[in-house]
Amino acid sequence: MTYFRENIEKMSAYVPGEQPGADATVVKLNTNENPYPPSPKVLEVLGAFDADLLRRYPNPYADKFRDAVSKVLDVPVDWILPGNGSDELIAMIARACASRDRPIVYPVPTFEFYLTQACIQAAGPVEIPYDENFNLPVEQLAAAGGAVTFVADPNSPSGTPAAREQLEELAGRLKGVLVIDEAYVDFADSDALYLARKYANVIILRTLSKGYSLAGLRLGFAVANPELLEGLAKVKDIYNVGALACAAGAVAFADQGHKNTNAEKVKASRKILTDELIELGYAVLPSQANFILARPPGGDAKTIYQTLKVRGILVRYFKGPLLDDKLRITIGSDEQNTALIDALRDNGSQDLRYKT
Amino acid sequence: MTYFRENIEKMSAYVPGEQPGADATVVKLNTNENPYPPSPKVLEVLGAFDADLLRRYPNPYADKFRDAVSKVLDVPVDWILPGNGSDELIAMIARACASRDRPIVYPVPTFEFYLTQACIQAAGPVEIPYDENFNLPVEQLAAAGGAVTFVADPNSPSGTPAAREQLEELAGRLKGVLVIDEAYVDFADSDALYLARKYANVIILRTLSKGYSLAGLRLGFAVANPELLEGLAKVKDIYNVGALACAAGAVAFADQGHKNTNAEKVKASRKILTDELIELGYAVLPSQANFILARPPGGDAKTIYQTLKVRGILVRYFKGPLLDDKLRITIGSDEQNTALIDALRDNGSQDLRYKT
Repeated sequence: MTYFRENIEKMSAYVPGEQPGADATVVKLNTNENPYPPSPKVLEVLGAFDADLLRRYPNPYADKFRDAVSKVLDVPVDWILPGNGSDELIAMIARACASRDRPIVYPVPTFEFYLTQACIQAAGPVEIPYDENFNLPVEQLAAAGGAVTFVADPNSPSGTPAAREQLEELAGRLKGVLVIDEAYVDFADSDALYLARKYANVIILRTLSKGYSLAGLRLGFAVANPELLEGLAKVKDIYNVGALACAAGAVAFADQGHKNTNAEKVKASRKILTDELIELGYAVLPSQANFILARPPGGDAKTIYQTLKVRGILVRYFKGPLLDDKLRITIGSDEQNTALIDALRDNGSQDLRYKT
Repeated sequence: MTYFRENIEKMSAYVPGEQPGADATVVKLNTNENPYPPSPKVLEVLGAFDADLLRRYPNPYADKFRDAVSKVLDVPVDWILPGNGSDELIAMIARACASRDRPIVYPVPTFEFYLTQACIQAAGPVEIPYDENFNLPVEQLAAAGGAVTFVADPNSPSGTPAAREQLEELAGRLKGVLVIDEAYVDFADSDALYLARKYANVIILRTLSKGYSLAGLRLGFAVANPELLEGLAKVKDIYNVGALACAAGAVAFADQGHKNTNAEKVKASRKILTDELIELGYAVLPSQANFILARPPGGDAKTIYQTLKVRGILVRYFKGPLLDDKLRITIGSDEQNTALIDALRDNGSQDLRYKT
């Protein structure tokens, strides 16, 4: 007997973007972190934390955080399921809904963790290619008959949004669950929360990692009708959100002003960076996220990725169709974005390593 | 199409012990929390936390915490896999190793989350009954041929330890993985870490929830050989341990003195409480954990559980064989233990509600 299930033996682990040490002086534009700090209320909460809340088990549904989300989004608390990052919620959905006869479906290229989950569940996947403009292939997605269909919106790594009517058409046509992964929604012009209210099969995923500058906290949540969440909760770890994430997440989510101010700054920088890249001859997809996918003139993205890395600037390079001639660049601070543009403009003679 | 897999539709969710609000004045002896606070170093770390570590994604393997564990236990870092509580690690093991043809096996009664995991994976379970003294049924466990065999040691809810030679015999005879869940080991006279070094199929699970008074933090870890952990990591969420749990866990684990002092206090109280219960006519199983399983004279544990609850004292009552005539009582502070004994001695005329 091997120790692992056959499909676990065969699969590869998900590989996250490089994370240099906290002290490394790099311009880090590779994992879509927010360049601005989280709400100052988070550090206040941590500085005055009650040790008794650490000693005791936390609330199994992170009620304090759910209350904050409920107020801001005007959604009842039993429509909200918090998770240890939205990656945990993606895994829970796969585990509860997908299996060999119940495939996972998604358009590609997209967030590769959906593939990881399909491999773990031996549930397909059925991958439907995007066209070069990343239009949502509604017809093919609907026809694939997924038990779970994942759509990242805005999509990663393209940054492109789906049209609302396309998402709604898909929701209406699918018999299985439609997961709209809104990890980057805080930088977008619209969201699809109303589809969770309108369609019994729609799950909206949100995270505090990007808009709220809390990637290190691990906190996300699902919004869906209570019947759907009750099923998902069966595969939930007993206490999946700790007392610290619950308390810090509650004050961060309540501080919408802080999040919105930072999101506006990122969106303004996104416009500037896009214009500058276009000026350098790059083709840039229209992004609604805190990153852009850009094709350098000539399309030798891999060499540019490597050259930037040597100079202490990390961006993300992905292999495969529609991606291997492009770079995914996280929107950084003005200083970081300038360092990137300078390096791209430069012919390689200067050391443009960013010093913090 | 239903939204969920068939076995998810059929199963029930795990039900954790009651968790009253933080302000409730109850004597809480139902979920095996440590009555003493965590290391003061934890609050120091939280009070001086670097917001940049929250803004950025954490290390995928909580390296700082792994380093602390590695030093204390003298185990290489690649033999350590941290989890969002040991419940997450239990779920990961089930997901990676168990399926319809690869059953989960464990002695009963034990921690019910193993059953939850078997239901999710449709992997049996094969449940082997303990005898009334909770001797490990090695022969039957080995014969059951589990892909995963869970043994909680000390066992919950009995508090009883397995003999080392029994555990070792089981490790040697099993072809599948043997998980020794040492959640309560900090209150025991011995551990089984050496079996992970000696047998390629042994996984040791530890948690900071009990001995380190950090149930609210959500942090545990597995110790096993790197090949085994590499397979498990394939089903790991990308960043399963947040930056706060990593940093707080590292200082808490390094503070062995604090943990040991509290464990000694709990063990001393366990002896006193056991003696007092025996004096009241209770039959008490020999416990190596921070709780005891005790049978009241007459065996009407359910009524006593309910009576205590009305008086603001929470203990745990479980249905089923070997349990429904007993109470599982967490070792509390001296004041809490005294309140419990007074209430049990009392005939019901006084209000012994505990005031903090």
